[in-house]
Amino acid sequence: MSLKKKPVNGMKDILPNEMVIRDYVIGIIKETYRSYGYTPIDTPSVEHIENLSNKQGGENEKLIYKILKRGEKLKLDTAKSEEDLVDGGLRYDLTVPLVRFYSNNAHELPNPFKALQIGYVWRADRPQRGRYRQFMQCDIDIFGDESNMAEIELILATGATLTKLGFKNFQIRINDRMILKAMAAYSGFAENEYESVFITLDKLDKIGLDGVAEELKKNEFEEEKIEKFIELINGFSNDADKTKRILESLAEKLARNLDATIVQNMGEILTNVESAKTDAYEIIFDPTLVRGMGYYTGTIFEIAIPEFGGSCGGGGRYDKMVGNFTGKDVPGVGFSIGFERIILLLMESNFQIPDQAKKKAYLLEKGLSNKIMSDTLSIAQSEREAGTQVLVTRMNKNKKFQKEQLNKEGYNEIVEVWREE
Amino acid sequence: MSLKKKPVNGMKDILPNEMVIRDYVIGIIKETYRSYGYTPIDTPSVEHIENLSNKQGGENEKLIYKILKRGEKLKLDTAKSEEDLVDGGLRYDLTVPLVRFYSNNAHELPNPFKALQIGYVWRADRPQRGRYRQFMQCDIDIFGDESNMAEIELILATGATLTKLGFKNFQIRINDRMILKAMAAYSGFAENEYESVFITLDKLDKIGLDGVAEELKKNEFEEEKIEKFIELINGFSNDADKTKRILESLAEKLARNLDATIVQNMGEILTNVESAKTDAYEIIFDPTLVRGMGYYTGTIFEIAIPEFGGSCGGGGRYDKMVGNFTGKDVPGVGFSIGFERIILLLMESNFQIPDQAKKKAYLLEKGLSNKIMSDTLSIAQSEREAGTQVLVTRMNKNKKFQKEQLNKEGYNEIVEVWREE
Repeated sequence: MSLKKKPVNGMKDILPNEMVIRDYVIGIIKETYRSYGYTPIDTPSVEHIENLSNKQGGENEKLIYKILKRGEKLKLDTAKSEEDLVDGGLRYDLTVPLVRFYSNNAHELPNPFKALQIGYVWRADRPQRGRYRQFMQCDIDIFGDESNMAEIELILATGATLTKLGFKNFQIRINDRMILKAMAAYSGFAENEYESVFITLDKLDKIGLDGVAEELKKNEFEEEKIEKFIELINGFSNDADKTKRILESLAEKLARNLDATIVQNMGEILTNVESAKTDAYEIIFDPTLVRGMGYYTGTIFEIAIPEFGGSCGGGGRYDKMVGNFTGKDVPGVGFSIGFERIILLLMESNFQIPDQAKKKAYLLEKGLSNKIMSDTLSIAQSEREAGTQVLVTRMNKNKKFQKEQLNKEGYNEIVEVWREE
Repeated sequence: MSLKKKPVNGMKDILPNEMVIRDYVIGIIKETYRSYGYTPIDTPSVEHIENLSNKQGGENEKLIYKILKRGEKLKLDTAKSEEDLVDGGLRYDLTVPLVRFYSNNAHELPNPFKALQIGYVWRADRPQRGRYRQFMQCDIDIFGDESNMAEIELILATGATLTKLGFKNFQIRINDRMILKAMAAYSGFAENEYESVFITLDKLDKIGLDGVAEELKKNEFEEEKIEKFIELINGFSNDADKTKRILESLAEKLARNLDATIVQNMGEILTNVESAKTDAYEIIFDPTLVRGMGYYTGTIFEIAIPEFGGSCGGGGRYDKMVGNFTGKDVPGVGFSIGFERIILLLMESNFQIPDQAKKKAYLLEKGLSNKIMSDTLSIAQSEREAGTQVLVTRMNKNKKFQKEQLNKEGYNEIVEVWREE
């Protein structure tokens, strides 16, 4: 078999110019989340195939990289289907392994538990520009807190992190699955119709309100329900004050379908985030926000950065997932930053890392005496100790090109060390 | 299929107390290597199965986690062997993907190129205490430098990193495959016997010189060769000055079998590292050092930390590996830190991270007014900005236990926020 130079299909090599930015962003993320009391954890990249195929992952379950059984467990002769051949898969998100982690280790963890997990996930998706089959996710989650303190602390921490990365004028939009359900109930939809209605509503940004109405008709829902639903949405979509006022007017209309505590809960989140957040972003109540994942049970949220059409991260409350592992529900709520999109935005905006170390290079002629070489190395060592980034390297034959290259890498001070010195 | 709480066999969940130390160590490693001009890169965890199965990986090739083909490419009906089912595997080290990376991207990289790669690798090894099937590696490599400047800069950087992590009295041992070969030739072994002799010599630390002699006899080498070989080794193993003097006396004996430039090369490395290194470690010439990997072509080195029996990392020169991908050899040399062993040592020695942020926790009673909650959050926000790690969380019913837990996590200042305030 001949060797292959390219990475496997859909995955990429990361060169130093990008990797330096990734390292910087990860540093800011860790530092900021740590200041909010999130503690880092890690889970294996390989997960039980059973845990990845339990229907909670939706479309992602079709995209799993599956891992062949090994040794005697692999019975090629009698295998009838894929399931007989594999026992693991690469995780397609961080939430499934995190919930398994919590279920397995809760007795050793504080309560509530605030987790930070940063790591690669894998999906054998169709490769597209800017989307890869291995990509990094960056999640914070809180287990064991049923109060909206959890949502507030997730949103404030994520907002602060994006602010530190230099993003401005972004939005964090928030909704509650219970409000969505009340809206559907108010319009007359039956409970078994909700999911289909929400899938259509989720396209609002792309197809507009008319498009939503059209698709609902195409799906053969009754005219009367559709009209009432569209009218409800239309009522608040033109409101200039997008936060508490919408919530209040909506609550009034949905009074018979919506538990008052849901409205109060949402109001508290809005008020408290508003009063403590940075100026770089708005917190917006958006009753049309859907978020696809089936496991959300309450609040849902999403980041919108104007430079980037579409979502740059999101999350929500999932109070039933731990119960799938342990039989006993534990409240959980998480927020995921769209790490790869943020890197893409920073790369495209020619982002420069602030406060970089001074860079100095020594070019050593071939055949230096041990004395000169040792002296140069000792000087370099103390300069490194003092915080300078020092490259000691041999002098190339094409010295001019080498120096140009080094300038490009940011080595502005270049010292040539010759035999005669 | 029911859900599984435990990690997959042989892999582990990493809890916050360990993860905090891992993050700290990675930070020191990145910072130190950066100060030497190494630039970070990353490669996909999934590698072409062809690249992983080219016989350069030795025993590791038997331990590959293989990845099932997807979609139409998977032809279960006609598959006759494992090879028909898989197209990728999880990398078992960072060197194979790095060499592929360099072969693929050399035109965009500086020359020489100094790479830093930190990442997980996977081996389906028999699980043992302290050894896992997913573990982190941490490698620095230099491509395009045939001079010993590369070895010197690798050893100084690795020595400095371990020094910063607080290790003392460790050793970096160095040898050259060419010296090993000359020793074998001097003793009368034929070239096709070298590898077998080296495999036995590699066990010297474990079985002693008598054990080596015994095993060589068992392998039916001629008495005369064995005697000469053992006598040669015995000659320098008792020498008090383990560095240059051994090299010189050995060079004299091997004059007919060893190119003088190899001796000069080694002498320069020893002198220059000696003069620029920290006091925390010794650089030791050890002509009995073997290092297993078949791809090494010149110098080889290894870290020995007294607290940890056995190697804590190592590396060497592999001038022929890029040629396997491109048809054109490029000099390469690398040094890998035994990351997991270092973490194990730090965990066992109850390592405390220096200069940690001050930690403060607010416990909020249930049902606080928005005013009190907002005020608390705003204060917390500014304390975070000022560098304190601030946890804002609800007050548990068992407050005493909660506070004990928080103390254990290092939250020494705990503020209770009540409704009446």
